[in-house]
Amino acid sequence: MKVAVMGYGTVGSGVVDVIDTHGKLLAKRTGGEPLEIAHILDLRDFPDDPHSELFTKNFSDILNDDEVKIVAETMGGVNPAFDFTKRLLKAGKAVVTSNKELVAQKGLELLQAAEEGKTNYLFEASVGGGIPIIRPMAQCLAGNNIVGIAGILNGTTNFILTKMIEEDMSFGDALKLAQDNGYAEKDPTADIEGHDACRKVCILASLAFGKHVYPNQVATEGISNISLEDVAYVSSANGVIKLLGQIKYINDDSIAAFVSPAVVYNGSQLASVRDVFNAILVRGDAVGDLCFYGRGAGKLPTASAVVADMVDCAKHVVRRKLFGWGAGAEDYVIDHKATVEMPFYVRANVSEEQVKGIFGEVKFLTRKDQPSDEVAFITGSMTENELMKRLDGIHTLNIIKVTNY
Amino acid sequence: MKVAVMGYGTVGSGVVDVIDTHGKLLAKRTGGEPLEIAHILDLRDFPDDPHSELFTKNFSDILNDDEVKIVAETMGGVNPAFDFTKRLLKAGKAVVTSNKELVAQKGLELLQAAEEGKTNYLFEASVGGGIPIIRPMAQCLAGNNIVGIAGILNGTTNFILTKMIEEDMSFGDALKLAQDNGYAEKDPTADIEGHDACRKVCILASLAFGKHVYPNQVATEGISNISLEDVAYVSSANGVIKLLGQIKYINDDSIAAFVSPAVVYNGSQLASVRDVFNAILVRGDAVGDLCFYGRGAGKLPTASAVVADMVDCAKHVVRRKLFGWGAGAEDYVIDHKATVEMPFYVRANVSEEQVKGIFGEVKFLTRKDQPSDEVAFITGSMTENELMKRLDGIHTLNIIKVTNY
Repeated sequence: MKVAVMGYGTVGSGVVDVIDTHGKLLAKRTGGEPLEIAHILDLRDFPDDPHSELFTKNFSDILNDDEVKIVAETMGGVNPAFDFTKRLLKAGKAVVTSNKELVAQKGLELLQAAEEGKTNYLFEASVGGGIPIIRPMAQCLAGNNIVGIAGILNGTTNFILTKMIEEDMSFGDALKLAQDNGYAEKDPTADIEGHDACRKVCILASLAFGKHVYPNQVATEGISNISLEDVAYVSSANGVIKLLGQIKYINDDSIAAFVSPAVVYNGSQLASVRDVFNAILVRGDAVGDLCFYGRGAGKLPTASAVVADMVDCAKHVVRRKLFGWGAGAEDYVIDHKATVEMPFYVRANVSEEQVKGIFGEVKFLTRKDQPSDEVAFITGSMTENELMKRLDGIHTLNIIKVTNY
Repeated sequence: MKVAVMGYGTVGSGVVDVIDTHGKLLAKRTGGEPLEIAHILDLRDFPDDPHSELFTKNFSDILNDDEVKIVAETMGGVNPAFDFTKRLLKAGKAVVTSNKELVAQKGLELLQAAEEGKTNYLFEASVGGGIPIIRPMAQCLAGNNIVGIAGILNGTTNFILTKMIEEDMSFGDALKLAQDNGYAEKDPTADIEGHDACRKVCILASLAFGKHVYPNQVATEGISNISLEDVAYVSSANGVIKLLGQIKYINDDSIAAFVSPAVVYNGSQLASVRDVFNAILVRGDAVGDLCFYGRGAGKLPTASAVVADMVDCAKHVVRRKLFGWGAGAEDYVIDHKATVEMPFYVRANVSEEQVKGIFGEVKFLTRKDQPSDEVAFITGSMTENELMKRLDGIHTLNIIKVTNY
C-alpha cells in the first residue's frame, strides 16, 4: 500500500526510518501488504538522503496520487497542516498525525472531514509520544465513566524538574542542560510555560468526555517559578513537584481542566516518573486508577506510534467509529479556581502563629538553611479563590497545587 | 443490541452491574445502541436477583437466539467454556472473555473459529484485569519489534509479597490475610505456584510474536519458597522480590518465557507496584520501555474490560483482523536455563571466601541477625545451568533470578 509522509523533521524522518527497518514486520501486521513510501513532502532539500527521489515540495503530488491511501502528517503547527489534512481526508485518504497543536485546535473539524471522506483520522502519537493512550481511552475504557485524569505530559519540563529534585540543579542550569541534550528548543517557551502540556490536556479531555476542549479554555501555568527552595520543602513532606495536566469530571456539561506545577506524594505512580518519561493516570469509576508510562517524545518512540496508526489504517480501509468527539461549548470548562477544592503548598514570609491564625492546623515543612522569616506549609482542602482570600495581605513566595493522584 | 452473559460469578455479575449502571454511556459509545442483556447462563439459582427472569441453565437458549449478537463468557475454566465459545463463534456470534485459562489453552482454535464465523473473539480482560494491554499490544505497538516483556501479572502474590516486604509479615500470615480479604482462594495453588501468571504469559507471548505458546511450555515457579530472610537481603541491595512473568525475544523461531520470583531494583517501574496491583512492562525496539499499571483483578475492573470489548463488538459487527496469532511449535520456547544469561541472588551456607573462589567478585548482601554461616550475594551474569554447575556441592538456601527490567 502506497503511503506518503508530510514533514521530514525529527518525527517524519523517524517514520521513514521505522518503515525502512521494519518492512517485514509491518507487512505481516497489515495482513500482507507492505507500506511503500511514495512521496515525502518538505520544503527543504535533502540531496544526500537515500530517499531523495521521493521528495517533493508540491502538496498536489500527494493529493492527486490515487494510489496513496495513507498519509502521515508530521509537519507540526496549524498551518498549512490543517488545510492539507482537511483536503486529504475529504479526498478519502486516511491521515495519521503526531501534531498535537493541530489536533487540539482542529480535531473536531478534521474528524468531521474524515467522516465526509469515509476515512480515518488517527492521532495516537499526539499525546504521550510512543505511549498507547488514545486507543486505550477511546476503546478499552468504554465501560467506565472517567472521573479524572492527571498526566506528566511534557518530557522537557519533567527532565528539568528531575534534575532540580535529584541533583539540586537550579532551574536555569537544568534548562541549559535540557537544551544541550536536545530535549528543549532554543526557544523553550512552549514546553516551560506549559503550552505543550495544555494541547495534550485538550486532546485527552475531548476524548474522555466527547466534547472538544480548546487550548484557550485550559488555565495554563509553567514551571519557571519553581525554585530549589520549593523542591526542598516539598521533599521534606515526602513529595515531589511535577508539571501536571489535570482534568476533572464535574457533570455531563462541565469539566475542570488545568496545567500547573503540582505536589505529588511519593507512592503515587506519577512520583516515580523521572527524566524525559511521561505518564498518564486515568481514574475510572469501575476500573479505578490506571497508569500508562513511557517515552513521551523522541524520534523513534513517536514515529513508532505514527506507524502503528498507519498499520491500523491499512488494516481498516473503511472508516472506523473510534471517537465520540463532538462540539465543545464556551462554558464547558469551568473556572477551577472557584470550584475545585484541594490542598495547597504555600511558601511565604509570615510567622507560624499567623499561619495558624488564618488556616488552623496545617502541616509545616522544613528545609536546610531555612530563613527565620520564611515558612512553608500544606493547607487543608479549599478552592484557590478561598486560599487567595485568606492569604490577602501576606507576602507569598510561591503557591503550588497539591494533587490527589 | 441483545447480549448474553455466561457465568454469573464475580466477573459475570460485575458485567451485568456495569451494563446496568452505565447504560446511557454505553449506548453513546456503541453509536446509539444500548446493550440489552437477554440471557444469563448459570447452573446455580439466583431467585432473589433482580434479573432472575433472564437466567437459564440451557446453553441452547443463547446459541439459538438469533437476536443475541454478543456473548460475554465469564465462566472460567476450559470446559465447557471451550465448547460453548466455539459453537457461538462458528454461529457468527461475537464472544468476549475474561477466561485466561481458556485463551491460553485454546486461543488459536477459538480465533480460527471466529474467522470461520466471520465474527470477533476478544479477550482484553484475560490479562491484567482492567488494564488495557491486549489492544495496545496488538495495535499500538505495530511499529515495534518487541524485545521483551516483564509483568507483575498476579495480584494475590503481589499482595502477599508486599506484606512481606513492607510489614515483615511471614508468607503464611500474608497468605491467610489475602484469603481473609477475598484476594486468594481457599485453595490458593493457581496463584501461589504461578499458574495464573503462566497463563497470562502465554497470552502475551502469543500476541507479541504471533505464535501460540502453551502453558506447559512455560517454566513456572511460585513464591512459596520466598522467606523473610530473602526479602531482607534483597532490601539491603535496594531491591524487592516480585513474582514476574518474563518473555524474551531470541529470534523469529524461538523465545524464552518463564514465571518466577525475581529481584527488581528500586527505580524500575515494576518495583513500586504494590498490593493487588498489576503492571506490565513492554520493551520495544523503537519505543523503548512502556509500562501499563492498574488493577489486575476484581469484580468491576475486570468487568469493565469485558464490557469495553462488548462495546467494540457492537461498533464493529464485521470481523476485525486484530491479532496475528498463528500456530505454535514444540521447540518454539527454548530452555532458558541453558541460554538466557542474567545475574542471580544466592543465599547459602558457605563462607565469603568460598564464594569469591567460585564467582570472583560478587555483591554481598546483609540482614539483621545474619547467622555467621550464612551469606547472600548477587552473581555476575550467567546462565542458570552455569550457576548450578558452580554451586555444585554448596548448601544453597535459595536462588532467585535478577531481572533487568
